[in-house]
Amino acid sequence: METRFQQELNQLKEHLLQMAGLAERAITNAIEALVRRDTALAEKTIAEDEQLNKLELVIDDWCLKLLALHQPMAADLRFITSAMRINIELERIGDLAVNIAERVVSLNLEPQLKPYIDIPRMGEITKAMLKDVLDAFVKGDAQLARSVCERDDQVDGLNDQVFRELLTYMLSDPKTITRSVHLMIVSRCLERIADHATNIAEGVIFMVKALVIKHHADVKGKEEKG
Amino acid sequence: METRFQQELNQLKEHLLQMAGLAERAITNAIEALVRRDTALAEKTIAEDEQLNKLELVIDDWCLKLLALHQPMAADLRFITSAMRINIELERIGDLAVNIAERVVSLNLEPQLKPYIDIPRMGEITKAMLKDVLDAFVKGDAQLARSVCERDDQVDGLNDQVFRELLTYMLSDPKTITRSVHLMIVSRCLERIADHATNIAEGVIFMVKALVIKHHADVKGKEEKG
Repeated sequence: METRFQQELNQLKEHLLQMAGLAERAITNAIEALVRRDTALAEKTIAEDEQLNKLELVIDDWCLKLLALHQPMAADLRFITSAMRINIELERIGDLAVNIAERVVSLNLEPQLKPYIDIPRMGEITKAMLKDVLDAFVKGDAQLARSVCERDDQVDGLNDQVFRELLTYMLSDPKTITRSVHLMIVSRCLERIADHATNIAEGVIFMVKALVIKHHADVKGKEEKG
Repeated sequence: METRFQQELNQLKEHLLQMAGLAERAITNAIEALVRRDTALAEKTIAEDEQLNKLELVIDDWCLKLLALHQPMAADLRFITSAMRINIELERIGDLAVNIAERVVSLNLEPQLKPYIDIPRMGEITKAMLKDVLDAFVKGDAQLARSVCERDDQVDGLNDQVFRELLTYMLSDPKTITRSVHLMIVSRCLERIADHATNIAEGVIFMVKALVIKHHADVKGKEEKG
């Protein structure tokens, strides 16, 4: 039978998944607003961030209470402190989706600069990273988390490509400058969302393997003893 | 007499101050490298980030050990979990200083676009925010922390101003576009450093007053009971 503490840990997990769901929807909506040039959807994305902000506080509070009341050890302690970190990362992802949505509102004041190909692709990879990293967290799957870290390079590469392409637009036609800058920022926000997903992945690997891969991505770590 | 636990909390505090010192120096060096067009200093800034990365792991480990071994309650628990958050923020500040330094290396390949006035000013405000917020953390001074949050608007305002000015440069002379984009990113990095300092400030206020001002910046909170 589940102890009270275990039930509360499960509730924490569910809160985090709910938070991740909100973050994922924010990215989906922001990119859809960009592609469909849908200012109303962009504004909805901005307004809905309030939910993420509120849930962040609930989760943080929940974690502190679990630490204070149950004084957990070892694996449970790592789980709760990981949850605290994931919570911060998800809230930031929400902020970045808002930044994208704000740029969409500005972009929609002018005609579309170009068909969007790489940016929606970055959005897809980023969302898959977020989805997988939360799966990895729930299942304690370090290998899946590691695959998330690896995909970060793809997003970085696409961001560089988008930057170069937009620079070319700006250089050949100054009328495109404002729109190009907005799109550069959109691209950079997606790149940063991928960074946050990678941060979560590193936390999951730490949690699962008590193994620090942060700043040592290519060092093969030891499995946790005992 | 100090207990063993108290001594360890003080050591944690000192580690964090050391980390903050490294982050502050990284900002100073990155901005000085920009203003003096000093590529060697920019490269040094990039190389020295390794120290911040290493110290982040040491501090995180320290916090987990304190939580596991001493199972602290109330104020101590809040202090340690705040330290974990501050640690994350400081490491990100280091990364942003590296981003600035990388742009400086690129900028130094071309002649200087314009004299820098607003960007060094943003650097000064940002560094003062970081210094004050660490002071606020050490002294448990919520009012000082609150003053840090207030200065964030100044930096946001300067960033908007720099963006508009650089857009004007780009529009009037396409040859300035690459440099303008680099400078926009430098400005944005400083604006994000100020955001991180503000995040720390919110954490300090929470720690001191057990009061959540995040997402409720203008709601006057209640003092902690008891």
